[in-house]
Amino acid sequence: MLSFSGGQDSSTSLYYAKDLGYELTALSFIYGQTLSKEIRGAKKICEIAGVKHKIFDITAYKDLAWFSSLTHPELLPIPKEVKEGEVPFTYVPVRNLFFLVCCGAYLESEVLWKIEVEEVKPENIERASIFISANYVDYSNYPDCRPEFYREAVGGLIAGSKIGSFYKIPIKVELPLIKMSKREITELGVRLGVPLQFTWTCYKGKKEACGECPSCKLRIKGFKEAGYIDPIKYKIPIEWPGCKEIEF
Amino acid sequence: MLSFSGGQDSSTSLYYAKDLGYELTALSFIYGQTLSKEIRGAKKICEIAGVKHKIFDITAYKDLAWFSSLTHPELLPIPKEVKEGEVPFTYVPVRNLFFLVCCGAYLESEVLWKIEVEEVKPENIERASIFISANYVDYSNYPDCRPEFYREAVGGLIAGSKIGSFYKIPIKVELPLIKMSKREITELGVRLGVPLQFTWTCYKGKKEACGECPSCKLRIKGFKEAGYIDPIKYKIPIEWPGCKEIEF
Repeated sequence: MLSFSGGQDSSTSLYYAKDLGYELTALSFIYGQTLSKEIRGAKKICEIAGVKHKIFDITAYKDLAWFSSLTHPELLPIPKEVKEGEVPFTYVPVRNLFFLVCCGAYLESEVLWKIEVEEVKPENIERASIFISANYVDYSNYPDCRPEFYREAVGGLIAGSKIGSFYKIPIKVELPLIKMSKREITELGVRLGVPLQFTWTCYKGKKEACGECPSCKLRIKGFKEAGYIDPIKYKIPIEWPGCKEIEF
Repeated sequence: MLSFSGGQDSSTSLYYAKDLGYELTALSFIYGQTLSKEIRGAKKICEIAGVKHKIFDITAYKDLAWFSSLTHPELLPIPKEVKEGEVPFTYVPVRNLFFLVCCGAYLESEVLWKIEVEEVKPENIERASIFISANYVDYSNYPDCRPEFYREAVGGLIAGSKIGSFYKIPIKVELPLIKMSKREITELGVRLGVPLQFTWTCYKGKKEACGECPSCKLRIKGFKEAGYIDPIKYKIPIEWPGCKEIEF
């Protein structure tokens, strides 16, 4: 199970988990128009990778987590930079917990089917894993990108699920990128052959990435530090001194 | 903040919290057709109680938590009785965690608005509470009705939210009914003047309650033990020996 936005990070996680031999289902979530381009890219990437992909429209979440530039840009404009130590308005209330629980519901359904319909013995199910692509280094101060958040959150999944508390199947939240910088994530993505030209990171979701929002800035920084030219198109000219093109 | 299904339990919690002087928002969630009658009752009860009510359509959740008699009765028939120690098929994967996180997203949005727009100082916000109507006594073995689940789950909400981990506002999950039997919940409801005639508990969601599903059986047992005739209509004849009518 992989929470999959189609961005650079989750696409890299997808290839990472696939490389380790996990049998994966990638779940994408739509909530409002923002970042819908990311979802189209997500579909494309799963096709290329040959991974099962499910898309869920959870637009209601937009109105539950209404205090955010990402869910309601008309209410809170997207900030151009993040002040030291501040949690910016692009933070979406408990978003990563919400996605984790959505993945947990699907994961538990799959595992219950195995146990209660296919009659697989619970002791033969080694673990139930959810891959999350949070990374802590360039994390914009989001509380729900920190490893301590995921350590806390998995406790709720174990105690609140039948597979965790009744069948005692180890539920794991795998955080392959948690300690990586954007540079390392870019390097890993290039090494694993991630189709980075279809990944989308920009907060503004237009035809071309804006190149100016905090998310674009982080992405560009990561590619530059890794020494690669980002294969996506930017609206503003970006300099790539000393960087080389990625071969796909 | 109150997770409000319109059932007997959450209606009783609503009146309980209102009686304590909490300024409440009641959130109801629709996920699939099952129990939609409960939602109509929920609206009516909030009107009577004078409580702000928001309804969110989270139908996608039905397909995320697909292994359940409540989300997919065509896949798994609703069992007529619950075997000792078993978690029945009416269990919906991590449902209570999902509802808790939905409530958390709305609650956090409201609190962030207060702090960042209305400029209320975080230290002046005593607590942020979510009322949940789980009860542990007649709990059908659902893992996510146990107090230990809620103790675990609140950790994720605190660590994963800006209001919990950045502004350090105490987030509380209030479980007023957790140790009450259905008898005590019925008695409390009658005492608080809950319009029990509009509460709906039956899993089958038709015009009249079936009187046979585990949920109906629990409700009828609670009313009988409390000595009251249930004011809702049942499809099958129910005997109420020694019980009296509730005065509204």
